[in-house]
Amino acid sequence: MTNTFGHLFRITTFGESHGGAVGVIIDGCPSAHKIDMAKVQAFLDRRRPGQSHLASPRNEKDTLECVSGLVNGITLGTPITLLVRNEDTREDHYSDLTQVYRPSHADYTTDLKYGVKAPSGGGRASARETIGRVAGAAIAEQILGTLLPDLRVVACVDRVKDIQADVSGKITRAEVEQTALRCPDKAQQAAMESLILEAQKNGDSVGGSIACFIYNCPGGLGEPVFDKLEADLAKAMMSLPASKGFEVGSGFAGTYLYGSEHNDAFVVKDGRIRTASNRSGGIQGGISNGETISMRIAFKPVATIFKDQQSVDRDGKEQTMKPKAGRHDPCVLPRAVPMVEAMAILCVMDHFLRQKALASTRGAERL
Amino acid sequence: MTNTFGHLFRITTFGESHGGAVGVIIDGCPSAHKIDMAKVQAFLDRRRPGQSHLASPRNEKDTLECVSGLVNGITLGTPITLLVRNEDTREDHYSDLTQVYRPSHADYTTDLKYGVKAPSGGGRASARETIGRVAGAAIAEQILGTLLPDLRVVACVDRVKDIQADVSGKITRAEVEQTALRCPDKAQQAAMESLILEAQKNGDSVGGSIACFIYNCPGGLGEPVFDKLEADLAKAMMSLPASKGFEVGSGFAGTYLYGSEHNDAFVVKDGRIRTASNRSGGIQGGISNGETISMRIAFKPVATIFKDQQSVDRDGKEQTMKPKAGRHDPCVLPRAVPMVEAMAILCVMDHFLRQKALASTRGAERL
Amino acid sequence: MTNTFGHLFRITTFGESHGGAVGVIIDGCPSAHKIDMAKVQAFLDRRRPGQSHLASPRNEKDTLECVSGLVNGITLGTPITLLVRNEDTREDHYSDLTQVYRPSHADYTTDLKYGVKAPSGGGRASARETIGRVAGAAIAEQILGTLLPDLRVVACVDRVKDIQADVSGKITRAEVEQTALRCPDKAQQAAMESLILEAQKNGDSVGGSIACFIYNCPGGLGEPVFDKLEADLAKAMMSLPASKGFEVGSGFAGTYLYGSEHNDAFVVKDGRIRTASNRSGGIQGGISNGETISMRIAFKPVATIFKDQQSVDRDGKEQTMKPKAGRHDPCVLPRAVPMVEAMAILCVMDHFLRQKALASTRGAERL
Amino acid sequence: MTNTFGHLFRITTFGESHGGAVGVIIDGCPSAHKIDMAKVQAFLDRRRPGQSHLASPRNEKDTLECVSGLVNGITLGTPITLLVRNEDTREDHYSDLTQVYRPSHADYTTDLKYGVKAPSGGGRASARETIGRVAGAAIAEQILGTLLPDLRVVACVDRVKDIQADVSGKITRAEVEQTALRCPDKAQQAAMESLILEAQKNGDSVGGSIACFIYNCPGGLGEPVFDKLEADLAKAMMSLPASKGFEVGSGFAGTYLYGSEHNDAFVVKDGRIRTASNRSGGIQGGISNGETISMRIAFKPVATIFKDQQSVDRDGKEQTMKPKAGRHDPCVLPRAVPMVEAMAILCVMDHFLRQKALASTRGAERL
Repeated sequence: MTNTFGHLFRITTFGESHGGAVGVIIDGCPSAHKIDMAKVQAFLDRRRPGQSHLASPRNEKDTLECVSGLVNGITLGTPITLLVRNEDTREDHYSDLTQVYRPSHADYTTDLKYGVKAPSGGGRASARETIGRVAGAAIAEQILGTLLPDLRVVACVDRVKDIQADVSGKITRAEVEQTALRCPDKAQQAAMESLILEAQKNGDSVGGSIACFIYNCPGGLGEPVFDKLEADLAKAMMSLPASKGFEVGSGFAGTYLYGSEHNDAFVVKDGRIRTASNRSGGIQGGISNGETISMRIAFKPVATIFKDQQSVDRDGKEQTMKPKAGRHDPCVLPRAVPMVEAMAILCVMDHFLRQKALASTRGAERL
Repeated sequence: MTNTFGHLFRITTFGESHGGAVGVIIDGCPSAHKIDMAKVQAFLDRRRPGQSHLASPRNEKDTLECVSGLVNGITLGTPITLLVRNEDTREDHYSDLTQVYRPSHADYTTDLKYGVKAPSGGGRASARETIGRVAGAAIAEQILGTLLPDLRVVACVDRVKDIQADVSGKITRAEVEQTALRCPDKAQQAAMESLILEAQKNGDSVGGSIACFIYNCPGGLGEPVFDKLEADLAKAMMSLPASKGFEVGSGFAGTYLYGSEHNDAFVVKDGRIRTASNRSGGIQGGISNGETISMRIAFKPVATIFKDQQSVDRDGKEQTMKPKAGRHDPCVLPRAVPMVEAMAILCVMDHFLRQKALASTRGAERL
Repeated sequence: MTNTFGHLFRITTFGESHGGAVGVIIDGCPSAHKIDMAKVQAFLDRRRPGQSHLASPRNEKDTLECVSGLVNGITLGTPITLLVRNEDTREDHYSDLTQVYRPSHADYTTDLKYGVKAPSGGGRASARETIGRVAGAAIAEQILGTLLPDLRVVACVDRVKDIQADVSGKITRAEVEQTALRCPDKAQQAAMESLILEAQKNGDSVGGSIACFIYNCPGGLGEPVFDKLEADLAKAMMSLPASKGFEVGSGFAGTYLYGSEHNDAFVVKDGRIRTASNRSGGIQGGISNGETISMRIAFKPVATIFKDQQSVDRDGKEQTMKPKAGRHDPCVLPRAVPMVEAMAILCVMDHFLRQKALASTRGAERL
Repeated sequence: MTNTFGHLFRITTFGESHGGAVGVIIDGCPSAHKIDMAKVQAFLDRRRPGQSHLASPRNEKDTLECVSGLVNGITLGTPITLLVRNEDTREDHYSDLTQVYRPSHADYTTDLKYGVKAPSGGGRASARETIGRVAGAAIAEQILGTLLPDLRVVACVDRVKDIQADVSGKITRAEVEQTALRCPDKAQQAAMESLILEAQKNGDSVGGSIACFIYNCPGGLGEPVFDKLEADLAKAMMSLPASKGFEVGSGFAGTYLYGSEHNDAFVVKDGRIRTASNRSGGIQGGISNGETISMRIAFKPVATIFKDQQSVDRDGKEQTMKPKAGRHDPCVLPRAVPMVEAMAILCVMDHFLRQKALASTRGAERL
């Protein structure tokens, strides 16, 4: 299932960063829903480079073309195929790129596994592969908008290197989109921006973390054993380029507490069963409990930097890579925000369909 | 795929903690391998409660019975079915357990999803479900022992609450198994034990983290997009009961570095391409590069504690749960060590078979 | 997915004919349904040998044991595991069975593929493997009984060698079960029985065909491309031991007609859209249309006969196999009737769950 | 898995007959193989309408565009995406097509399932969907050409209505392609052609059967239980539009024989174990035995005819459909020949990869 994600709502992405096109097939999409393609394009534009002074100057227009699955914007229940033609394929910034493995990129392992090294660019390992994911999620989000009108999936920059934002309140996507940085904590925005621009000036890069919240997620999503909702979210997020860690709810920090401090007491609020605190992060035993789902994803400092680096070429000879003028991001975090949202949306959509099959066939017996 | 893990080497676990039996079917196991069932039992015994003063006094013998797939200990290529009968099903420690949802357990969400609440015990959410995983992995490990004789999968306790061990060197399973704690750092063992026993005395629980290493993993395992090796490892680990976080290689800590500090330079060593450092954690672009694979998994303080807790019953009425004398672990970490190893082994085995299909059909063209 | 059938309602069967046990895990079973295990056993007993003078004298009691998934007969939504212990493992009837490949059995190809030849008996290729399928289907049928109370899946013997029955009317399972032969056409029963007993006397075997009908199947089941309902039924039936052909609706015979004779006109009957004829066999474009689904499956004369046969042993030396007194069926058809029903039920159940996921998320737009 | 076929070599097809494009994604394709796209196009051209006087006059150029997966014609191991733009979308031949359900087409069931009725044309049910299958198979065939140079997959017209050809000898694709009819039996070609042209003149259609042979298939392909090679072939063929039946080896005819007449004796020939006859059709116990695999598929007379027909419109009112001048085939058989070959190739390719994973990890023990 290499290039496919999901069980009932499945996306299959295709395309290399420097080939003819990248895109996605969505299989299992519910029929008779109206899709606003301008909104899909708008969601996709959020992951585009060249959006701001913080990101890569590379200007990809990334205009979506839909070649199947919709008539008059209505889903037919057939596979939806969305394509983006690759246009901006200028030569890459390392002159010897086709022969030398870039450190901490996928070049070496791709060559090892497939015996081919695509000329310039990261092939499927490029962030450009995520176009298909984001486009697929943008469709899913519109359908969820009809089926679960209160659901909101919002991600934001949580930390840049060692500058931590406060993202503890309820956050809207509008707030996040107010700045190119995509961090809603106004107190930290200036410092974060300076840090990124400073790294860029030095030919260097920085990492950090993204927080993601699913508000008003219905209870009952997720399966109790392997396909726990947090397990599928973890896989989803760890499949994004440059991600190095994942945590849900209280995460690593919660492991410093005693059980008596960590447990979420059950209470009744407005006639509904709720938890008084939410260290579970909205998921218990792998199944959503109706509270806000929260998670955090670590992204490493991107591997493309503008400094001399030690490496080895395809013939096994050590080489010093010398950068040419380049065009990559000093920090992947702002662009990763919509990618993280996309993966969360895809997980919710898939588990929502799975839950629907179960819920609509449940019997009436009671134990 | 609720209860199934893996694509070519697939395990399906079954059984509730208080039903007739728990177990596993292994499908896709290579044929004509000799299995030593005593070693499988020995691996399984490591996850058993009642092993030491640190763990639950509950004494489960957990004797494996093999009902299919082997003749004279040789794999037939047919499904291998392993069963453990449930024997120790004494009444549970909360008198009102069948009616009140235990905080931070799966009781409430299970009832929400399935409309049934199994009498006492956590059903599939119980750590007892992992018997099937560990038994399946013990079979896989023996087969990997023939196919990849140098491969070693070793996990250990990395941190208990706020006491951090040093696990930076190469660790053997023998070292780890020297103490009930399963932490190889002799300098921290006493403090960690005291902390756990103190929590137990207080009716409380503690969490922490497990480190896991895959030594001598062949390069080429993992797929470039969704089924990245770290993504499947993340899903595997986050599907374990009580896990809250996962990181690979430099993980969250690595995101505090600059790219120039984080990148792993390529070098040639003994005629082989290697990385000078290993912040990638043995995986680049989702594919193993031949270096040691390293990861860390966060486990929360277990939810079962011996203190009064606020909760709600099935009728939606708030209740105070009052503990009876119980029998659960104050700290899941020592027993989680073989579970983490098991999930890592299952990932390696599955991706190894997948890689074999590709590698044995690769063409001879070169780009 | 070797030993697994189904996408949302999945059965995984296990066990060799001469190992410790055979059985099934059902994964994806809707929760909160009451199962009558005596009825499951009764369904299973229909496939048992030793039921009548027409079948193998081998007496397998085949008593089901349920080790997971039910409490007080109520489905928990967890995997249901059903086991039958193997008891009757007397020596087989060919003295040299472990060394000589039986003609038209799976011995040779199993050895070729797995490099192991299980001592005596057909391993997974034995009809005994179908115990798991039938037990799984018996559970499914009870749940369908609640969800689709009018649905009826009925199979019967359609032809024995060259004696064709008339099965054109609506048939009930009660009618079919009136005779050991399981052919409802009273006019042909005597001739069919004689033919089978004559073959038995001669140490020979006969084949024929089974007809299967799904009455009151809801419309909308099946997918338009690869997972057409008839495609999944074909796979299901062709996966039964000894089956050699499958046809749906007008089948091979319908290909002798002109299109103008073959098309099913649409009419309105009792306010519902119906077809005037039913050459489509209840499926159009891969999707059920609400009419009776009809199919026919060819079963070869079973390969086990009591005559000298030419063969080859594992060392590649030609040998004449000389039969000992044996215990196999001269005609598989009567026992295959419940197996065919089982596979049809499993297909309906799986596609019903898949359809539920789609139908409950369909939008309101109209093209 | 609606629109996906295969487990390790997976194709996902997309596109409606009257949408923007149709095509395929191939996932799991071995890397480093050279693909000759002109040959892929040539294979595809065989299924095109407008090729001859026997087929639909509709002229689809069906020019393939490859947008991912190949560089310089070499497979990268990434998804291969092939597209054909839809060009010829003239109005269809029934004026009221958007409102009236065409008899024995997928219109009614598609509307029933999805609640949308695509404007004109059969959507995914159209034979145009098979473009993706055939293109995918054409890639697979070239790779199999390297891995299994002696393998040949050849299909041909076996019977048109009641005119039966003799296809008992070894047949080459070159022979089959000598005539537009694609039947190699010169004795029957004229009669078959007359029958088809006569039906066309009468505004009617005819069906028949296709035979398909896999020569020099390696032994060991297929799995013993659900994924038997013949079961996957049956599903593959029954998923083709208009197919109504499938048989393997002796098929339905073989069920008229006694077991003693039907069994295939094993012999040694040229040092290899062979069968003296081949009623098994090259598959025993679901696994290929190295003999020629043979099967036959029934195709109904196509539903599109040029006569008045009784039907019902979307509002549930009975209507008489009156044909306009149209452009469909009077007989699908000649064009179905490459489709049948395509499905057979896809099955072989997928099972070959699956077998490679097993064979390359098999142990050395012997039972």
